[in-house]
Amino acid sequence: MEFPSKLIENAVGELSKLPGIGKKTALRLALHLLKAETDTTASLAEALAKMRFEITYCQTCHSISDAEECSICANKLRDHSTVCVVSDIRDVIAIENTAQYQGVYHVLGGVISPIEGVGPSDLTIDSLLARIPDSEIKEVILAISPTMEGDTTAFYLSRKLRDFEGVHISTIARGIPMGGELEYADEITLGRSIVDRQRQVR
Amino acid sequence: MEFPSKLIENAVGELSKLPGIGKKTALRLALHLLKAETDTTASLAEALAKMRFEITYCQTCHSISDAEECSICANKLRDHSTVCVVSDIRDVIAIENTAQYQGVYHVLGGVISPIEGVGPSDLTIDSLLARIPDSEIKEVILAISPTMEGDTTAFYLSRKLRDFEGVHISTIARGIPMGGELEYADEITLGRSIVDRQRQVR
Ligand SMILES: [Zn+2]
Ligand SMILES: [Zn+2]
Repeated sequence: MEFPSKLIENAVGELSKLPGIGKKTALRLALHLLKAETDTTASLAEALAKMRFEITYCQTCHSISDAEECSICANKLRDHSTVCVVSDIRDVIAIENTAQYQGVYHVLGGVISPIEGVGPSDLTIDSLLARIPDSEIKEVILAISPTMEGDTTAFYLSRKLRDFEGVHISTIARGIPMGGELEYADEITLGRSIVDRQRQVR
Repeated sequence: MEFPSKLIENAVGELSKLPGIGKKTALRLALHLLKAETDTTASLAEALAKMRFEITYCQTCHSISDAEECSICANKLRDHSTVCVVSDIRDVIAIENTAQYQGVYHVLGGVISPIEGVGPSDLTIDSLLARIPDSEIKEVILAISPTMEGDTTAFYLSRKLRDFEGVHISTIARGIPMGGELEYADEITLGRSIVDRQRQVR
């Protein structure tokens, strides 16, 4: 693509490095910014730079945080006896948005993937194991995506966590999504949803 | 959506002001930037700000430019007797990328739209009319989208341009897109493509 300006060419180049943003979309975004008030671009550029340079990670749960301890870990009203282990910060945000969980989190920072060269020591597993002794933790929920790598990670964690007496290990329920139609569910999910069927309370 | 950090909340807020970027996509982009090197964000923020604050518009054709005169207007090898009138800078980029046009441009900055309150004086029409006297311009190509507003604009321009003797007015060819199948073409395009049929040269 040829551009009549180096300035717009650079902006399109940087925008199209973002995931899911092609050259055409990048150009559309750049032209939108050019048409809008200068403030729009100034605020965007500042918010991105501020986020990247000032953000920190919670020293306890490794979620993103504006301070040494994140707002969830610092909240005395949360249930600190239950820790939900997730691979990514995105999962924390997704679970928080359900408003169904009152415990705390532990963000692994990925999943074990021999192909991509990610081993247990590349994740925050040691930090999780170190959190448990002398703590009030009574349950660890493994909320990791049921992919091959995710299952490997969950299996590895289960074995490590088994050493802690008095700490229950659970996994999030798998099954047919709410509102999902049986006939469109994949075979594995459907099969598992029958095996793991939940008895109705009378 | 709840965020564990004000910094990420602001970044997501600014990103989701961009056209076609929802909150979920904005979050994905923000988390991508957080995982990538700080340089990625710094380069992006700088390129956007630099583009917005340093870009200028060509005083002749009103296209974006890094100088008072754009690289197309300044190019002596281009055909300055032919001016292609487009509504938007995006059209200049699209036509340049076809590598089929050697003339120069005139960017209107929009189309006449009574509903949106855009009249002829809000566009660079006076500047176009002022370009013609004492110039080498022999042809003005109206390359405006065939929408109702676009057709109104083209009609308005045709009438104004008729006053200039010796200046031909043309419009870009309409018809079935290359590779397009007749049965999928809309009726108006198909009808027009028959009326405006081109005689084959033997
Ligand atoms: Zn925390
Ligand atoms: Zn120009």
